[in-house]
Amino acid sequence: MDTRSPTTTHLTDAQRVDWLRLIRSDNVGPRTFRSLVNHFGSARAALERLPDLARRGGAARPARICTEADARTELLAGEKLGVSLLAPGEAGYPPRLAVLDDAPPLLGVRGAREVLMRPMIAIVGSRNASGAGLKFASQLARDLSDAGFVIASGLARGIDQSAHRASLTGGTVAMLAGGHDKVYPPEHEDLLAAIVASGGAISEMPLGHAPRARDFPRRNRLISGASLGVVVVEAALRSGSLITARIAAEQGREVFAVPGSPLDPRAAGTNDLIKQGATLITEAADVIQAVEPIMGRPIELGEPDDDPLAPEPDASDRARIVGLLGPTPVLLDDLIRMAEASPAIVRTVLLELELAGRLERHGGGLVSLI
Amino acid sequence: MDTRSPTTTHLTDAQRVDWLRLIRSDNVGPRTFRSLVNHFGSARAALERLPDLARRGGAARPARICTEADARTELLAGEKLGVSLLAPGEAGYPPRLAVLDDAPPLLGVRGAREVLMRPMIAIVGSRNASGAGLKFASQLARDLSDAGFVIASGLARGIDQSAHRASLTGGTVAMLAGGHDKVYPPEHEDLLAAIVASGGAISEMPLGHAPRARDFPRRNRLISGASLGVVVVEAALRSGSLITARIAAEQGREVFAVPGSPLDPRAAGTNDLIKQGATLITEAADVIQAVEPIMGRPIELGEPDDDPLAPEPDASDRARIVGLLGPTPVLLDDLIRMAEASPAIVRTVLLELELAGRLERHGGGLVSLI
Repeated sequence: MDTRSPTTTHLTDAQRVDWLRLIRSDNVGPRTFRSLVNHFGSARAALERLPDLARRGGAARPARICTEADARTELLAGEKLGVSLLAPGEAGYPPRLAVLDDAPPLLGVRGAREVLMRPMIAIVGSRNASGAGLKFASQLARDLSDAGFVIASGLARGIDQSAHRASLTGGTVAMLAGGHDKVYPPEHEDLLAAIVASGGAISEMPLGHAPRARDFPRRNRLISGASLGVVVVEAALRSGSLITARIAAEQGREVFAVPGSPLDPRAAGTNDLIKQGATLITEAADVIQAVEPIMGRPIELGEPDDDPLAPEPDASDRARIVGLLGPTPVLLDDLIRMAEASPAIVRTVLLELELAGRLERHGGGLVSLI
Repeated sequence: MDTRSPTTTHLTDAQRVDWLRLIRSDNVGPRTFRSLVNHFGSARAALERLPDLARRGGAARPARICTEADARTELLAGEKLGVSLLAPGEAGYPPRLAVLDDAPPLLGVRGAREVLMRPMIAIVGSRNASGAGLKFASQLARDLSDAGFVIASGLARGIDQSAHRASLTGGTVAMLAGGHDKVYPPEHEDLLAAIVASGGAISEMPLGHAPRARDFPRRNRLISGASLGVVVVEAALRSGSLITARIAAEQGREVFAVPGSPLDPRAAGTNDLIKQGATLITEAADVIQAVEPIMGRPIELGEPDDDPLAPEPDASDRARIVGLLGPTPVLLDDLIRMAEASPAIVRTVLLELELAGRLERHGGGLVSLI
């Protein structure tokens, strides 16, 4: 099964337990999950091989594998909160998110599933926004909502909050950096409840997971990935919204930015985005005009990423590849060339290292030893 | 002689008198001037043929031809004010302006000729500018001036005034819509004096000409034409600065716009320019980066426009072509096709009509009967 199929999928209960066990096991991220399931044919088969692979990768101690009991406990706790753990292709899993290379294999979804299936536009910006910025975000969210779009944002203070509030009636979706029961910021618990009443909330994190700083950039890929495009309303230079814009561009999403005076530091980031090629917008019509042609096209899977693994690399391959790696990120393609091994062997060794917690994957095909 | 030569030219006194007589005669604009001089070989020869051509074009009354005495009087009056009437290619005639199709055959120039020969950037915008807009225009003019650019603008209130004032030391040029002795707005007489003391002022209008509304768009082509690019700082929709930006684009000049909040009506015009492809700028470096590659290139003449005229169209050609014309503008190319006459004959008939005051030339090769 292609774990990213945009067509209708339905996991059996047993499959869902296996998938949850695999994605909740140590050192398994969305990309590793896909490699493993593609190679071993199922999450169940991958789970059986996990200890072996991690040991070969040189794990200092046995990697923790999520037990069936823990997985069932999480599924039950989710049910009580109204959180379903959905696979890409299941109803309620945002279709554009489902086709990303690093789509969460199971996404915790709360709220109105039909809203999550509709075309989304993300509106993001400063927590510390100006009155004009907040007003503009509200107006834009309302107008896009009236035009039938679902508004995606990150539940933060400032622009996010304004965008969510103004689109409650039409439907809005909060992408969370922590578990569904760890609302951040805590004072937005009521706002989240209102969002979920008519729209939805999604998280890839387990219940009980309090969001850490590094979870926010990771969460940002859900905001842009689920959307046709991202509007950045106000952003200082080097702010989180610009990270979302960069990820959006990498995902092939439209990037829109709201201009502001060069004398206003809260517009420095958005003006800079426009200099770099983002589309300047001043009203909802600008956004709609840009995304309408995209909406007509079928949602396409990204480049297929089911590169085969090797049956088993030998010890000398493993030693040679590990020897080439260090703390400085190196391009996977360069590594394959320098290792004088087949791509399948290099990928397998990297997977083993990853499962052993010894490998870090950066953007753009870069890897380094931890 | 190519009347637009960017290379060094020097008119004799007699030529200058003839040129001035021709351009100051009824119904002779810069383009007609060039057609006539190209066809008849000199301004003197053209002056001799003028009455004949206008009569054939059906002038209601004999077209007024500027006398030698009037021309000499204007030249002398100019000298007293420090105004020289310069031809394209003469030192003090801005080189980029000199190569335009509709470059003034004689430009009234006051001030420091070397400043008028240096690379210019135009800064324009609302008369009714905000404090932030005025501050930005000042800062930008100062920074571009410090980087060696001469600042061109229109001596208006608001943005123009700020740009001129901030660049007095480095050199700034005021492009006037009326004669040099008819300063508009009148309260900027002191500012103009300060501008001319270290920079310059140019006008294609005779002394004593008080600017009318239609002279401002015409003047705007001098602002953009003399410059590498035009920066629009603040502009409402449908404002005069946007006309300058449109002309600049038609002239192949860079168009820069300063962004502003969508909630600020004074930024609506500049944001719109950016939507249409103008370059968003927030600082002088953005402008410099864009114009530097252009500065390195030699200044090129536009498309040669010395299409031949016919020795003499016959009466039936004339009647047929006039019959095809009306108050609705028609494309010159369509007219040539419909008239089933040679382009040279159509051009000659149009020139006759123009000299008779019966033809209006619009942008984009459109003509209509008056």
